[in-house]
Amino acid sequence: MTQSSPLIVSSYSIHDVRFPTSLTGDGTDAQNTTCDYSAAYLILYTSPKDTAQIVSYRGREAEAINADVKEGGLRGFGMTFTIGRGNEICCQAIASIVEDLLLGREIEPLFADMGATWQLMVSDCQLRWIGPEKGVIHLATAAVINAIWDLFARSQSKPLWKLIADMSPEELVKCIPFKYITDAITPAEALEILQAAQKGKQERIDEMVRDGYPAYTTSAGWSGYDDAKVARLTRSALAQGFNHFKLKVGANVDDDIRRLSLLRSIVDDPKEMPEGRKQPSEASIAGKNAGPTGCVVMVDANQVWDVSQAIEYMKKLAHLKPWFIEEPTAPDDVLGHAAIRRGLKDSGVGVATGEHAHNRMVFKQLLQADAIDVVQIDSCRLGGVNEVLAVLLMAKKFGKIVCPHAGGVGLCEYVVHLSLIDYICVSGSHERNVLEWVDHLHEHFIYPVSINPSGNYNTPTDPQGGYSIEMLKSSIEDYSFPSGSYWKEGVARTDPPSAH
Amino acid sequence: MTQSSPLIVSSYSIHDVRFPTSLTGDGTDAQNTTCDYSAAYLILYTSPKDTAQIVSYRGREAEAINADVKEGGLRGFGMTFTIGRGNEICCQAIASIVEDLLLGREIEPLFADMGATWQLMVSDCQLRWIGPEKGVIHLATAAVINAIWDLFARSQSKPLWKLIADMSPEELVKCIPFKYITDAITPAEALEILQAAQKGKQERIDEMVRDGYPAYTTSAGWSGYDDAKVARLTRSALAQGFNHFKLKVGANVDDDIRRLSLLRSIVDDPKEMPEGRKQPSEASIAGKNAGPTGCVVMVDANQVWDVSQAIEYMKKLAHLKPWFIEEPTAPDDVLGHAAIRRGLKDSGVGVATGEHAHNRMVFKQLLQADAIDVVQIDSCRLGGVNEVLAVLLMAKKFGKIVCPHAGGVGLCEYVVHLSLIDYICVSGSHERNVLEWVDHLHEHFIYPVSINPSGNYNTPTDPQGGYSIEMLKSSIEDYSFPSGSYWKEGVARTDPPSAH
Repeated sequence: MTQSSPLIVSSYSIHDVRFPTSLTGDGTDAQNTTCDYSAAYLILYTSPKDTAQIVSYRGREAEAINADVKEGGLRGFGMTFTIGRGNEICCQAIASIVEDLLLGREIEPLFADMGATWQLMVSDCQLRWIGPEKGVIHLATAAVINAIWDLFARSQSKPLWKLIADMSPEELVKCIPFKYITDAITPAEALEILQAAQKGKQERIDEMVRDGYPAYTTSAGWSGYDDAKVARLTRSALAQGFNHFKLKVGANVDDDIRRLSLLRSIVDDPKEMPEGRKQPSEASIAGKNAGPTGCVVMVDANQVWDVSQAIEYMKKLAHLKPWFIEEPTAPDDVLGHAAIRRGLKDSGVGVATGEHAHNRMVFKQLLQADAIDVVQIDSCRLGGVNEVLAVLLMAKKFGKIVCPHAGGVGLCEYVVHLSLIDYICVSGSHERNVLEWVDHLHEHFIYPVSINPSGNYNTPTDPQGGYSIEMLKSSIEDYSFPSGSYWKEGVARTDPPSAH
Repeated sequence: MTQSSPLIVSSYSIHDVRFPTSLTGDGTDAQNTTCDYSAAYLILYTSPKDTAQIVSYRGREAEAINADVKEGGLRGFGMTFTIGRGNEICCQAIASIVEDLLLGREIEPLFADMGATWQLMVSDCQLRWIGPEKGVIHLATAAVINAIWDLFARSQSKPLWKLIADMSPEELVKCIPFKYITDAITPAEALEILQAAQKGKQERIDEMVRDGYPAYTTSAGWSGYDDAKVARLTRSALAQGFNHFKLKVGANVDDDIRRLSLLRSIVDDPKEMPEGRKQPSEASIAGKNAGPTGCVVMVDANQVWDVSQAIEYMKKLAHLKPWFIEEPTAPDDVLGHAAIRRGLKDSGVGVATGEHAHNRMVFKQLLQADAIDVVQIDSCRLGGVNEVLAVLLMAKKFGKIVCPHAGGVGLCEYVVHLSLIDYICVSGSHERNVLEWVDHLHEHFIYPVSINPSGNYNTPTDPQGGYSIEMLKSSIEDYSFPSGSYWKEGVARTDPPSAH
């Protein structure tokens, strides 16, 4: 092995990791009644080119999915998130992308032009057919792209957000896929935004490292929780410093009114406020229907309604003053979201969506049609960091705030980087933004996210942490499906609605 | 085995079938430069419940993908179409749906409520996450749904189109997924359309069986063909009775002008017309920029442009009078298509799209935004027959004509049924409609489509033919990838742009 031999992607392993969250009702909503939070998890291994043995699983991809976690060396970790069944399909798709497009490549040229690297991963004309840029192949693209970014950040000994914050505006623009969105934003416009955000960048970095990024909590409001649990978790969230709370709705309007009233009765009551609590700033809650204590409530229907149903149903909840209704209808329905937003204008309820908005073209249209108030990007639904950057820039240009989707497994670890990038490099503001926080499954990560006493996300600073997505070897092994010890012992299994 | 024991879906096999079309340049366009037309192919096997042995491959789905074709018994055949790499991912997804949702079920209750059956296949909350209703999981849904319809039609000894034509309007409405589209069409409106189309239905059936359904040809205009081949194939298409011709564009504007001029110079020349040719009726070519001989030319860019590029490029081709530009930009970009249509209005070029429109919500918006002139449904991109019915009804309501996407492998076999259903049960008109015809790979099917001397698709009438998609056992075996004799012998392989 010589020092000068360039590193190549010499091998990989893929892991179908599933956590049995369906047993506790975590993550339940009107659409998703039994979720086993899962990761289609990829590890890229590198070796010096002159001594590398390339391990290909071509034609036997199932072996990559059952391969052991190898330790040591420069590695890149990436994943996409699913809720259980179907995770195996994403694993297969990740294997196909890595085998067909990545294995054997030198890593430095990939890092030197991350825009070209992204293009390479999405442009194979045959793989493109089964998307394009949507569904399984795009979820898999996200896992691969995110693993490459993680590898890149680790190779530079920087957390991902810092790697990007240290890029010049010109370098950043080169990372962004503008294909199909130049009618909304051109490279020149993007450059202008990024250049303007150079001012005050170091101050914002210092602020973030010191104070963290504002968060909201969904942990109290899952459909599967009874009223007592909602009340208990709401009080606990207040004690943690939160002042934005989200509740799942859409299964039954009377239940929703009761649950939302319960939530409001707690968070609007000055007597419920923990000692020494600081009232949120006016600027941070402007236009959000905040109550007397400055608390903000949001509701989320997870796509259960048709367009007119959404308007009618939400009018019945409007007196409880939610800031926005999230995912009122099909995520593909740009015009439907615009109609709902118009329909709710008078009742003061906004519209948010994005966790299922599958690419930059959907966000482009949501912005062009003025269909939403809040842009909810997803770190794995979009094709990884590059495409997220495109959406952050469009949101900035169209003057909308970005509140990323998180929760599940690994999403909080990912999105804190994205909100930091948004604040530090793009928007220069987090006045009204809040980042979703869900307190599940962080214990499986080596660089877990955490919340500080002000209810803010702590900024990841470990120089070895990359994109914060490295999972404990033991977690990968125990929760691998179906061969890991947890599943093998038959502790839990959410059966599909099948006949047998 | 007793006569009265109900049949259940007792087993299945899945086949990754790939044809090496990249070797000849068939199917090439500006986006898809090397296509190996492929089928993720599903066979459902049934057995009487009391003696059935259910063969599950759960956890070892790869075995289903390599299982033998079993003969005999009532079987259902279904497929989704891809262009090569990635076909294995669709196969995996089909296995997951069949295992999780279909295996072991009785078939009669499935047939008795095909709407509920469709809902069952798309509503599993965990599988839904990796779509929803788009990409790989929806392509796989199409294969499964189409196989169930094939099984249903065979169980009734009718071709698929006839099975549906014999349903009452009330029965048909029950098959249709209205979720997320009631703002565009309600069940009551659909029923009204279907009831109105009852009038003259038998006459239309007789006409179709006698005359067939009008077609257009794409076979002459692939990007990979040189001018001499285009000219030769155009003359040959004229001799076959065609008067609508489609050319691939978008790679180079000068080449496109030359190729389109060449095409027009042949089809507009009265001296080139074959002896005894009948001039197309005025009604069939109204508003289509037809030339002096009544020939119509269309162009297809397969998504290569951004919005403004599309408008500029097409203005340079407008003097050659194409009827429409197909897929000018990203298939998700409803507002982009609307902008392009507005931008080309003065130049007289229409807009068509749909082969990558991934569900009824996309078509709904294309119609609501008045973004297209021609609705190009795909039999495998949409979630099978049920969702196609929803789009046919919306197209009728919005007054747009339907010209399905075909070609590839198996698509022509499928879509002739869909156009017949459109004419017989929904629109009652085929005045301006034409169904895409591509003369590839029909030899692999037991009930292949064919064209009559007037350039019309012959109507499938074999009572055993179902949805016409049963493939020859020998074709499945020889072209199975990578284990079939064709691929094993290493005759051809389109390598991806990888480093090794």
